[in-house]
Amino acid sequence: MMKKHNFYAGPSILNQGVIKNAADAVMNFAGTGLSVLEVSHRGKEFTAVIEEAAQLFKELLDIPEGYEVIFLGGGASLQFYMVPLNLMHKKAAYINTGTWATNAIKQAGYVSKVFGGEVEVLASSEDKNFTYIPKNFVIPEDVDYFHYTSNNTIYGSEIRKDFDCKARLVCDMSSDIFSRPVDISKYDLIYGGAQKNLAPAGVTFVIVKKDALGRFERPIPTMLDYNTHIKKESMFNTPPVFPIYVALQTLKWYKELGGLKVLEKRNLDKAELLYNEIDRNKLFRGTVATEDRSIMNVCFVMNDEYKELEAEFATFAAERGMIGIKGHRSVGGFRASLYNALEMDSVKALVDAMKEFESKH
Amino acid sequence: MMKKHNFYAGPSILNQGVIKNAADAVMNFAGTGLSVLEVSHRGKEFTAVIEEAAQLFKELLDIPEGYEVIFLGGGASLQFYMVPLNLMHKKAAYINTGTWATNAIKQAGYVSKVFGGEVEVLASSEDKNFTYIPKNFVIPEDVDYFHYTSNNTIYGSEIRKDFDCKARLVCDMSSDIFSRPVDISKYDLIYGGAQKNLAPAGVTFVIVKKDALGRFERPIPTMLDYNTHIKKESMFNTPPVFPIYVALQTLKWYKELGGLKVLEKRNLDKAELLYNEIDRNKLFRGTVATEDRSIMNVCFVMNDEYKELEAEFATFAAERGMIGIKGHRSVGGFRASLYNALEMDSVKALVDAMKEFESKH
Repeated sequence: MMKKHNFYAGPSILNQGVIKNAADAVMNFAGTGLSVLEVSHRGKEFTAVIEEAAQLFKELLDIPEGYEVIFLGGGASLQFYMVPLNLMHKKAAYINTGTWATNAIKQAGYVSKVFGGEVEVLASSEDKNFTYIPKNFVIPEDVDYFHYTSNNTIYGSEIRKDFDCKARLVCDMSSDIFSRPVDISKYDLIYGGAQKNLAPAGVTFVIVKKDALGRFERPIPTMLDYNTHIKKESMFNTPPVFPIYVALQTLKWYKELGGLKVLEKRNLDKAELLYNEIDRNKLFRGTVATEDRSIMNVCFVMNDEYKELEAEFATFAAERGMIGIKGHRSVGGFRASLYNALEMDSVKALVDAMKEFESKH
Repeated sequence: MMKKHNFYAGPSILNQGVIKNAADAVMNFAGTGLSVLEVSHRGKEFTAVIEEAAQLFKELLDIPEGYEVIFLGGGASLQFYMVPLNLMHKKAAYINTGTWATNAIKQAGYVSKVFGGEVEVLASSEDKNFTYIPKNFVIPEDVDYFHYTSNNTIYGSEIRKDFDCKARLVCDMSSDIFSRPVDISKYDLIYGGAQKNLAPAGVTFVIVKKDALGRFERPIPTMLDYNTHIKKESMFNTPPVFPIYVALQTLKWYKELGGLKVLEKRNLDKAELLYNEIDRNKLFRGTVATEDRSIMNVCFVMNDEYKELEAEFATFAAERGMIGIKGHRSVGGFRASLYNALEMDSVKALVDAMKEFESKH
């Protein structure tokens, strides 16, 4: 079978060794003679898995004392509501950089409507279809937190720095966690769906500073209260066992590779190769302001004069094993997601296809 | 390796063919050359999976027109809150038959506190450590719904009938869905974690009558609104792809077996064999009132005069391949979960161990 190059935006490529370990554990988990799909989450084999996963999160991201790592179900979309429910008392500030940021702001509105508190949108790039990251905004000091989305999967923009601000910092890192070292000490809460750089769909990670919680009285339903899951070490109810098992395999692979600096270098190299080709190739152009380009999701379209070649290039690329490069309907064109598990040879294959296609036209 | 008999209470035994299919799809999903763990949930291969899973739910449970089947993350524990948030306006009635019912009542209290509405507990068996199902209660006609837990996984009691009542009926069937035919037309909403009779941990099913929703105005956060997930056919955000894939394999197996009447017969036979031995064997006794005994979770303890043999029997059974028969700490003793995928030979092995142990003492 022809080699497949998996550019899906999420759920997305996992390392082949991780996949092999996952399949092995489906047949026989940790020598139990049972499948990882049919063991108790309270058995010693799985509690070892979830503890090691949390430990490797702390180690790889260099998480300081005073933070907890928890694994939940429900996706980042549920975090859009849990964050303001747990943290917003008087005012929260957001920037709107894309679809997920928009939804996060909307869910904070539900908290505001029921419990009070103001949701302030400091800046938005909606005016230009989210093709850039707003720069001219000031993070107020008097807010409960400032929330942003570090990587906009759909639009292909990314904030690859940790903000300096007095406000508590909350970030949705669903699609770029583990793509670079992060100064966790600057954040009070980081969350994300794990189905990009970590695991199959079905598990959400939350890194939270304990000091950020319980700062006001509110009747928070048990499952939506971060403290519930912290106290029970992600075992208040049955956690998503298998996605967490796969996450652990990925984390172990990251450690073997040498950690986040190595991954960042790999990612910068991959992105540079592809963006250079987009900028050089007469057929294509990037959709995002150069300084705000994501190294995880590379969005590009055909230049206007070649617009009619779009479908042909899609077929041309598919014939060469490229999968999942159709752009999101909000942007059109193409999107190549270059998550951690994607190897350089897949980027080279895509770049070669772009060159070959150009030479045909 | 000695054959393992998996009596875990959940996550719990899955059919061996289902596990094999799951492992195969981890390596190569639907001939895509990719793992089921790394494909887009919006690709045609997975949308076919989720559609077929919903379709088989409808077929096997004979779900009438006007109902929707959705697959969510977050577990049944999140449903404890979503149910009253979506359905309780003035008053909801509950019976308290165990740990999960208690928690469902507690979460309805959060809705009541914030939005109003009264939570009435019609009856409880807490007075006798939930060893029976309350009988003498009347379901009021003027409530928004009546909620019960059909099977109490921890205490081993079960309500194996569909209530006749004028009130809308809501049921947590986490641990006995697909164990028997159910008259769905009597219910407005049935939900459950899938990690017992269906799938690995990580997916929650909801069967809901559309007419039950949207009957009053309330600001319901997007992810907690059933209508969100109905409108997007469980694809509002990334669903738990792999657990849903495995659920489909189980559903196909149920269909091959001949459906729920066949499964009910298997389950009744298995439970009868084990309860008969518990009642016959001088060492053991059941913990639940005879008429309320669960056919899914069989709880039993050592008779008082043999109490000191408990640890010895645990070891004795473990040496014969029994896994997960330790009772929950709230009950003590032993619990053998006889979910759909457990074969009769495992029950026979346990019964043989009980007989052999008796003859030693």
